[in-house]
Amino acid sequence: MKPSTIREQIRSGKHKSHTSGVANDYVQANLAIVPKEYAFDFLLFANRNPKSCPIIDVLEAGEVESVLAAGSDIRSDIPQYFVYEYGKLTKKVHDLKEIWRDDFVSFLIGCSFTFESQLLKEGVPLKHIEQNKNVAMYITNCQTKPAGQFSGPVVVSMRPIKNELVQKAIDVTAQFPNMHGSPVHVGNPKEIGIKDISKPDFGEFVEIAEGETPVFWECGVTPQSAAIHSQIPYVITHAPGHMFITDVTNEEFLRDRT
Amino acid sequence: MKPSTIREQIRSGKHKSHTSGVANDYVQANLAIVPKEYAFDFLLFANRNPKSCPIIDVLEAGEVESVLAAGSDIRSDIPQYFVYEYGKLTKKVHDLKEIWRDDFVSFLIGCSFTFESQLLKEGVPLKHIEQNKNVAMYITNCQTKPAGQFSGPVVVSMRPIKNELVQKAIDVTAQFPNMHGSPVHVGNPKEIGIKDISKPDFGEFVEIAEGETPVFWECGVTPQSAAIHSQIPYVITHAPGHMFITDVTNEEFLRDRT
Repeated sequence: MKPSTIREQIRSGKHKSHTSGVANDYVQANLAIVPKEYAFDFLLFANRNPKSCPIIDVLEAGEVESVLAAGSDIRSDIPQYFVYEYGKLTKKVHDLKEIWRDDFVSFLIGCSFTFESQLLKEGVPLKHIEQNKNVAMYITNCQTKPAGQFSGPVVVSMRPIKNELVQKAIDVTAQFPNMHGSPVHVGNPKEIGIKDISKPDFGEFVEIAEGETPVFWECGVTPQSAAIHSQIPYVITHAPGHMFITDVTNEEFLRDRT
Repeated sequence: MKPSTIREQIRSGKHKSHTSGVANDYVQANLAIVPKEYAFDFLLFANRNPKSCPIIDVLEAGEVESVLAAGSDIRSDIPQYFVYEYGKLTKKVHDLKEIWRDDFVSFLIGCSFTFESQLLKEGVPLKHIEQNKNVAMYITNCQTKPAGQFSGPVVVSMRPIKNELVQKAIDVTAQFPNMHGSPVHVGNPKEIGIKDISKPDFGEFVEIAEGETPVFWECGVTPQSAAIHSQIPYVITHAPGHMFITDVTNEEFLRDRT
């Protein structure tokens, strides 16, 4: 199915579930919306933490169409949104039309679906996909570089990789500097402050078998988490796994942005 | 001389002239200061036009010390500043202390001095340096990607390069994606809307001899020009050639940022 067709189904309420495995060849994006008053600090936070927060498009105050998706409407083209007021989750909605404000600035942030698709193509198996699980995510003891009111720990995703494929996984993901890029850490979870690898902070645990190494990448949850913890009056994000699907293929993105 | 020593001399009024050829091994930066109200749009403009506007540091509202220069003070460590009000040049000053406001956000923008130093090291002669001239700059017919109130043409710098060294010049500057990077155009000036190459819009003309090709790079004047033409209430820039000298060597910058 074409991305525009899927966005239409999402918009009309026919597709309300997550977007993992949907339109696999196309770039999907995380979303963070903040009022314009906080947009400079958020963009600066992203600039200072580019591996966690790869901004792939910014919709200026009140704009609803992304240049990455012709005819799209950011208020309706994501299957589920989370609304946070002063740091508290207050609403889960399928549509922002009732709460939309003209001072809302929308940030689309790169997502690991892009490099996962390339890892699979290059013969690096991903167990969470084989097991149909959400990737395991952990809060680390590494700190982001703060900007204005935004700060907090780096959040990482973990994928168990066969020892002999670790270098390949590094090389493949390094090709995507605008989609989290190369791993932030390889090996012992304790070195980045993860006490119990079997208990992720978000997502689901995937066992690390004999002959596999845990490999950690920076994660788009980092800027969302910083935005929520800043306790600014209003932050809207996509619900986990419910992404914005663009018209740009992973390959086009790789070619154009690197 | 150490950069900190030069900054002290500038601060105390002993050094009031341009900084070309001063502390050659260290990264020098262009400056643009805008009130916080316009900072988001300006940062977004820079993000959308990274080859023209390579941001190397942002000092948040009211901050005066750059992380790239310990003990520095952005209000006094540049030999000359230009102050624009509603798009008009109203003051040329050696110090901002009297007009400083706590809502001023300062952007340090990469400058071609960095890649010029590397070109010379790699055996690519630069005629404007040999002739002790300011580099020639031209307004092109290429447009920047607008953001908020900021828009306008791409401004380029031109250097005549010996035909057999053009590829080398491209390769060397491509190593500095955060300092304008590879050329935006090689050859016929008319293709980018420059009608008379002997009449630059800024800087001084350098003759293109037999066996030389004009090579064009994006230029840090682009974002300054966009900021001025936006006619926002207040923009402060460095005077041309009077740059901010950081503690970071060109080599460290190359290693860390690429």
